[in-house]
Amino acid sequence: MTFTASQIALLISARIEGDPEAAVGSFNKIEYAKEGELAFLANPKYEDYLYSTGASVIIVNEKLELKQPVRGTLLRVPDAYLAFATLLTKYQEIMSKQLTGIQQPSYIASSAKTGEHVYVGAFAYVGENVVIENNAKVYPNAYIGNNVTIGENTIIHPSVSIYHNCVVGKNVIIHAGTVIGGDGFGFAPQEDGSFAKVPQIGNVIIEDNVEIGSNATIDRATIGSTVIKSGAKLDNLIQVAHNVEVGNNTVIAAQAGVSGSTKLGRNVMIGGQAGIVGHLVIADGTKINAQSGVSKSIKQPNSAVTGSPAHDYTSALRSQALSRKLPELEKRIKELEAFIRQLIAERV
Amino acid sequence: MTFTASQIALLISARIEGDPEAAVGSFNKIEYAKEGELAFLANPKYEDYLYSTGASVIIVNEKLELKQPVRGTLLRVPDAYLAFATLLTKYQEIMSKQLTGIQQPSYIASSAKTGEHVYVGAFAYVGENVVIENNAKVYPNAYIGNNVTIGENTIIHPSVSIYHNCVVGKNVIIHAGTVIGGDGFGFAPQEDGSFAKVPQIGNVIIEDNVEIGSNATIDRATIGSTVIKSGAKLDNLIQVAHNVEVGNNTVIAAQAGVSGSTKLGRNVMIGGQAGIVGHLVIADGTKINAQSGVSKSIKQPNSAVTGSPAHDYTSALRSQALSRKLPELEKRIKELEAFIRQLIAERV
Amino acid sequence: MTFTASQIALLISARIEGDPEAAVGSFNKIEYAKEGELAFLANPKYEDYLYSTGASVIIVNEKLELKQPVRGTLLRVPDAYLAFATLLTKYQEIMSKQLTGIQQPSYIASSAKTGEHVYVGAFAYVGENVVIENNAKVYPNAYIGNNVTIGENTIIHPSVSIYHNCVVGKNVIIHAGTVIGGDGFGFAPQEDGSFAKVPQIGNVIIEDNVEIGSNATIDRATIGSTVIKSGAKLDNLIQVAHNVEVGNNTVIAAQAGVSGSTKLGRNVMIGGQAGIVGHLVIADGTKINAQSGVSKSIKQPNSAVTGSPAHDYTSALRSQALSRKLPELEKRIKELEAFIRQLIAERV
Repeated sequence: MTFTASQIALLISARIEGDPEAAVGSFNKIEYAKEGELAFLANPKYEDYLYSTGASVIIVNEKLELKQPVRGTLLRVPDAYLAFATLLTKYQEIMSKQLTGIQQPSYIASSAKTGEHVYVGAFAYVGENVVIENNAKVYPNAYIGNNVTIGENTIIHPSVSIYHNCVVGKNVIIHAGTVIGGDGFGFAPQEDGSFAKVPQIGNVIIEDNVEIGSNATIDRATIGSTVIKSGAKLDNLIQVAHNVEVGNNTVIAAQAGVSGSTKLGRNVMIGGQAGIVGHLVIADGTKINAQSGVSKSIKQPNSAVTGSPAHDYTSALRSQALSRKLPELEKRIKELEAFIRQLIAERV
Repeated sequence: MTFTASQIALLISARIEGDPEAAVGSFNKIEYAKEGELAFLANPKYEDYLYSTGASVIIVNEKLELKQPVRGTLLRVPDAYLAFATLLTKYQEIMSKQLTGIQQPSYIASSAKTGEHVYVGAFAYVGENVVIENNAKVYPNAYIGNNVTIGENTIIHPSVSIYHNCVVGKNVIIHAGTVIGGDGFGFAPQEDGSFAKVPQIGNVIIEDNVEIGSNATIDRATIGSTVIKSGAKLDNLIQVAHNVEVGNNTVIAAQAGVSGSTKLGRNVMIGGQAGIVGHLVIADGTKINAQSGVSKSIKQPNSAVTGSPAHDYTSALRSQALSRKLPELEKRIKELEAFIRQLIAERV
Repeated sequence: MTFTASQIALLISARIEGDPEAAVGSFNKIEYAKEGELAFLANPKYEDYLYSTGASVIIVNEKLELKQPVRGTLLRVPDAYLAFATLLTKYQEIMSKQLTGIQQPSYIASSAKTGEHVYVGAFAYVGENVVIENNAKVYPNAYIGNNVTIGENTIIHPSVSIYHNCVVGKNVIIHAGTVIGGDGFGFAPQEDGSFAKVPQIGNVIIEDNVEIGSNATIDRATIGSTVIKSGAKLDNLIQVAHNVEVGNNTVIAAQAGVSGSTKLGRNVMIGGQAGIVGHLVIADGTKINAQSGVSKSIKQPNSAVTGSPAHDYTSALRSQALSRKLPELEKRIKELEAFIRQLIAERV
């Protein structure tokens, strides 16, 4: 699908400078763009690329003064970055709307209900009593277990598995390979040293506007629900254990893990590979640094912690810096000891 | 599927107090339960919820004395928690038995053998010479490579991939997205700086009663077998490298990793995000704390270690605490130095 | 499929000692091998097993002098290990060549192009304009999004998901469950505390001879490309964020993560569970220890770092060792203080 400079100019209210029929089919960075691609120039630092780029169409700021002639067609707007972002969003909406219908072969149980403009890809499995609301998309090879609800406009990418009874809200995006509603890790130790499985009969509730990355795992509750509240954003390979609650607009970076029954507040930010032990309460606005290990509840909102075990950010950094000075500290202790020994020798 | 209070009473030998025809279709915590749901009250701390819950049926202890009238039907038993757990297990058995048969379209190689009461979901792939024993379940989109055996009552969840020649025992549960038998990470460095692949021709053997979480990876051995011994429980997103041996009833929490050829003893417990380097031997009953990095073999059974690199739990905690006191220790050294300087000045 | 000792002898130019018709169908370690299996003896430490092994055929060094009679047929070669490795590689080539054709049901868009001797497994999804070059293999339940190219001899294992527009080179192996081209983790904070998605419109380019383990995630670039350069080897459960560049022959062990826009040089080695923050440049030949957290660019080629935050390997080890001596250092400070106090008392 290609667009001409004049079509794009209409979408972003731009003034055209050059050939209005110049056509583009994809986007690229200005330094890499080739013929048939669209780029933008917002940061003056990159202006040199404007004169060497192969891009056929370039969005630039209204006020930019050219130092040399430019090969491609310019689209002048008040704010080139904003116009580019707007264009991307519109482009993705157009592409996304084109994807509807039920591809064959797919498996949709007779008791399942699908709304209008829904996409169900080939080899997707939709179980009994599933509800897929309007404009939702279920990509190929996804598995939607019995009694699951998928809200409006939600996108379930390939090979996602959603176990029975889970609830997914509106405008949610779940990336490929992620597992929602697998059994929580609950076992009762037996006298002979073995472990008996504790049935996990709760579910997972994912509220509206949540995005979850690829190959993440969100376990179902033992009883009740594991809840990901609206607006939360979770990166790839994240572990969320049973009965956890992730607060509104909380952001969790890749490979972090949250243990069972912990409650994260609103607007918490968790760095990559951080871990949080079970049964804690983490206050709103807490910032947890990458690779931290949080072992105690955090009650003060907007705290910042780092380290494993995690402590207050500033004091932890000071301790870390001093631990690098340990060889020097040891030397100073030795010098003091030598002096004292000498002092004692003199007094004798 | 709904059950009446009297049907449930029969299953758990309860005495009915209230409407024996009250019907329930699911379970919930007493504080959240709504009409049509079953709850239980074991802990007296939650008794207030008994009078406000919407649950239609509530399992309570025989001896409980009511302070107010209760809306739902009560089922009185000697031990409410035990009765509830029994009920869950029976419920899951009933639900599980209903799932049998070969859904279409699925792919079952002509040389594969499937036992009685087996379930093979739509879009499941069953390769040449595969054996699926009685009552085993292979969910949709799972891949069972050539020559794999799946034991009795074993459950393979959606999108699990089991590479060729692996062996899975009885009563095993493997959750969605997990990969069994991918190639071990073996490469021989070449003179030009590149790496040549070392063929990985072994397999993975998973013994009976093992449970493995979602999106975990258990690599096949270079030669021989990677072995997960009976009763071991592995959580989500765990890495088990080639030729590792995981001992009986060993428990590994989410996102932990075990490097190549390491042998874990029986009843070892490994915390989340811990890592163990290759070619080690870890004694029976060892406890490895979350986020630890174990770099040496542990010979003493029932040891406890923490930290990265990991050391004896008690002494590591003391060092960690002292490292938090480093700013204070440095201040004390400074004071000593100042005093000594003054002493020297006085002597001159 | 079985081979006789004489057939194998031809493949590796061996001299036969014993029954040339002895047949084997699989490989095993000499200590575990049973009848019908082939083993090798390279390390003299294992010579005892030669006399007890059940292997039907054993590859041994030309110079080996037998101390006892051996049951199986010996194949004598100058270097037993090398001959064994050669044999494995040839065996895998033979097995691999047998796998061709399009299994049904699979989904191949009408605009997709498939080369010669290609394998597309059942339930694999191949989108619009996809190109699958000669001898490439796409296993069951894999998802190949629109406009993706899969190079010659490349193997895509089961349940791999490759999003639209990504490019995979020749002789690449991607193991099961891995996700290529999922959206990068990019969100713009809004005034109300929520986050707006930043469209991720770039792609992933995987060059030739790359191997990627199971359940890894390689995110597409925001604009431009995330690039895995030729010869790089990535283990299981690895996270590579948007716009990262992984250099030639760089090796990354399991569960490590690289944050957005970081550039890794050539022949970098990254240990398991290590993390690297975003927007860094890591010099060629850098060695990053397991569980390290790299927070600054590394400019000096062939550096070695460890710890979180990571520092120069040697000095970090010294600090780690001293931090274990902290209780002793504190004791020495106390003794100095006691002495000084006594000194002061005496002077008064």
